[in-house]
Amino acid sequence: MRHNVTIEEAQNLLVNAAAAVKTTMVSLDSASGRVLGETAAADYYVPPFNRSAMDGYAVIAGDTVGAMPEQPIILRVEADGASTPGRAMARGAAVKVMTGEPIPEGADTVVKYEEVRRQGDTLAVYRALPAGENVVPLGEDMKPGDTIAREGTLITPAVAAVLAGQGKGRVRVYRRVRVAICNTGDELLHPSEGPRPGKVYNSIYHGLAARCRELGARPVDLGITPDDVEETVRRIASGLERADLVVITGGVSVGEYDVVEDSLQGLGAEYIFRRVLMKPGSPMLAARKDGKIIVGLSGNPAAAMISFELIVAPLIRRLMGLRKTTAPRFQGEMVDGFKKASPQRRLLRAQLVRQDGKNLVRLTGAQTNGVLKSMIHCNALVDIPAGSGPVSAGQPVTGFLIGRVDQADGEETAWVPMVVPGRGGVGRGTDAERDPQTPWIITKY
Amino acid sequence: MRHNVTIEEAQNLLVNAAAAVKTTMVSLDSASGRVLGETAAADYYVPPFNRSAMDGYAVIAGDTVGAMPEQPIILRVEADGASTPGRAMARGAAVKVMTGEPIPEGADTVVKYEEVRRQGDTLAVYRALPAGENVVPLGEDMKPGDTIAREGTLITPAVAAVLAGQGKGRVRVYRRVRVAICNTGDELLHPSEGPRPGKVYNSIYHGLAARCRELGARPVDLGITPDDVEETVRRIASGLERADLVVITGGVSVGEYDVVEDSLQGLGAEYIFRRVLMKPGSPMLAARKDGKIIVGLSGNPAAAMISFELIVAPLIRRLMGLRKTTAPRFQGEMVDGFKKASPQRRLLRAQLVRQDGKNLVRLTGAQTNGVLKSMIHCNALVDIPAGSGPVSAGQPVTGFLIGRVDQADGEETAWVPMVVPGRGGVGRGTDAERDPQTPWIITKY
Repeated sequence: MRHNVTIEEAQNLLVNAAAAVKTTMVSLDSASGRVLGETAAADYYVPPFNRSAMDGYAVIAGDTVGAMPEQPIILRVEADGASTPGRAMARGAAVKVMTGEPIPEGADTVVKYEEVRRQGDTLAVYRALPAGENVVPLGEDMKPGDTIAREGTLITPAVAAVLAGQGKGRVRVYRRVRVAICNTGDELLHPSEGPRPGKVYNSIYHGLAARCRELGARPVDLGITPDDVEETVRRIASGLERADLVVITGGVSVGEYDVVEDSLQGLGAEYIFRRVLMKPGSPMLAARKDGKIIVGLSGNPAAAMISFELIVAPLIRRLMGLRKTTAPRFQGEMVDGFKKASPQRRLLRAQLVRQDGKNLVRLTGAQTNGVLKSMIHCNALVDIPAGSGPVSAGQPVTGFLIGRVDQADGEETAWVPMVVPGRGGVGRGTDAERDPQTPWIITKY
Repeated sequence: MRHNVTIEEAQNLLVNAAAAVKTTMVSLDSASGRVLGETAAADYYVPPFNRSAMDGYAVIAGDTVGAMPEQPIILRVEADGASTPGRAMARGAAVKVMTGEPIPEGADTVVKYEEVRRQGDTLAVYRALPAGENVVPLGEDMKPGDTIAREGTLITPAVAAVLAGQGKGRVRVYRRVRVAICNTGDELLHPSEGPRPGKVYNSIYHGLAARCRELGARPVDLGITPDDVEETVRRIASGLERADLVVITGGVSVGEYDVVEDSLQGLGAEYIFRRVLMKPGSPMLAARKDGKIIVGLSGNPAAAMISFELIVAPLIRRLMGLRKTTAPRFQGEMVDGFKKASPQRRLLRAQLVRQDGKNLVRLTGAQTNGVLKSMIHCNALVDIPAGSGPVSAGQPVTGFLIGRVDQADGEETAWVPMVVPGRGGVGRGTDAERDPQTPWIITKY
């Protein structure tokens, strides 16, 4: 077991301890937003024939040599309507074709309606047509064997469209990752209950469950769990059966009520690490049991959400089969100062904004552990190194981009998340792969 | 009816012709990723009491005046375990409290376990404690009346967590927007069918349906529709009954098979516009019937996806109740040249990449109408003004950011979408609101 690991060590330890879940075949209709479970290649030519790009007449270019506005070449219209594949066209012939239709064998160019004059079965062409005009050649878009998308790729709308174009009505995807969430604490109330003295609403479940859904995983609610070792063991065991990962919140601090640690021992789980060098979020631990990972997070909602984003989300992406797992980093300039010194590595909840050609970083409110509302507009966590003094306005900073980059209200500014090259990179591949439905979204404009 | 409108005019015409769908109450569990249907405000203080931030002893600061390492003050431990709200603490007393628990009435500070020595019922305190230490005051995070999030806001994980913390087990959201999709074309095959000569797979449905899902809307499949006016009228009518918006693809070019136009006339729909000044995607139209909008897109998959993204997605965001509807813009520098002149306004499929401090724009492949695969890695549409000559490498360009900004494979580069301030802005609000699960995602790092 490792003690007091860095955020990056914690990411690596978890990502390396996990393997992607199994794959399954699903209909293309339910495949979008999921992760491709095998590399998909084309089986067919697209288009599957030489296709007309216009409504017009398919002709043989050689037949139009010498045609001029004053001296049209007269061709013979062979048949109206859709042409028949396999049918060879004779010299001097013209066949009417609609946009997207195959052009007859033998024809090598299409002249637009607007450019010709038809009288009965004759067609006047007023210029010499180059071969290939208005013809989309067989296989222009895809040829058999072309890679559509690699295993571990998110199935985006464009990928779904290309898969459909290859007649792939079913595709192999990683099955949905299930994340069991267990919130310990005698003081917790479910949001559907009425308020009770001395109790607080369990906000943390909904924050983590919503983030799981955004990532494309399914939350499994193990419920509010009393501060009781036996019951906690039961819940974790149930989570291990029902899910791919168990996340427990609360009960991981230093006092006597550290039911999570006692429960993990009771369960015979093998520790991976204990405590992470970060504030907030240091009281975190990870263990393994039956090949599955159990993560314990702070019972503080803001701290739990920050640890989850930086350390658990990469693990979930790994389980989902995505190649790239970590959050991007940014560089920016502080708008606000932060008065406290940071003996520990500190993460400040902030909003990254592009303004006047700069990446500006604004704190989203109070940074104390108990404040959750400063997470609402937080899209960036400023990364203050351990041993730093106060942060002053104007100071350059770096950090993690953790949220959608669009959360400022009432401003017509532009958002520019910037990344420090060479940072990040936990994961098994070097390729950037998309993160489904995730954080780093720009809708600020 | 307007003819030959600009992209921006088309966006405005549609957004202004539509209103958000109705709202509905849903459980908080199913509210994440949806749009808040009313402004949510806090009802309760969070925390609902003065709370201990540590495991330790709640004491009265005044009782510790004069305490020193060599001369501790001795207090009387009143009771172990959780304290009772409403209970007043006597002078000279100390009550054990766990992190998150209420501190007893009368107590105003918490001293950590590590700092004290307990023997039986006595507690030695070795320094004078300031009032408020390790105490999270009542309402530090939220106070009754505080705004949580405004109507028209996406319910993100942080918003969900704060709503839960206010005991909002049910929340008002806009109901799901349904988008009916009708693909016309005798040549179309469903991806689950075997290949047939002269036929092509219907890729466009899956591209648009997947994008609807990404946006948070529900696609309604009206099926592959033959090039027949009566049948098309029937399908559109069914779409108008079943959905909030009907999207038809194909049959909107200039030839004789323009079943969509004939169908709209047969249906008595009122035109909004016809043709958009863009390439690809110009053969587009929009009409209104029974207060709902019908949009006709090119039958060309790439063109349809581009028009959908630029003109239909803003309409869907409007229907969903989001305040901000249009795609952001970027500025960048071309890596590749593009040899053709652009008599019409042209959109080039490209990938925006941050490299060496620059926003580099790379074309994603062939730009011809028939090529769909260049959409796969496309996150940006370069906007070439009408009347432009060829584009040369190194030339500064602007455009629309339409996809996730993370699609380059095999590169450790950073992505910086940049926005032209003052552009965009179709919609009814001036506030930036988040776009659910949408395109502009950074996972490239």
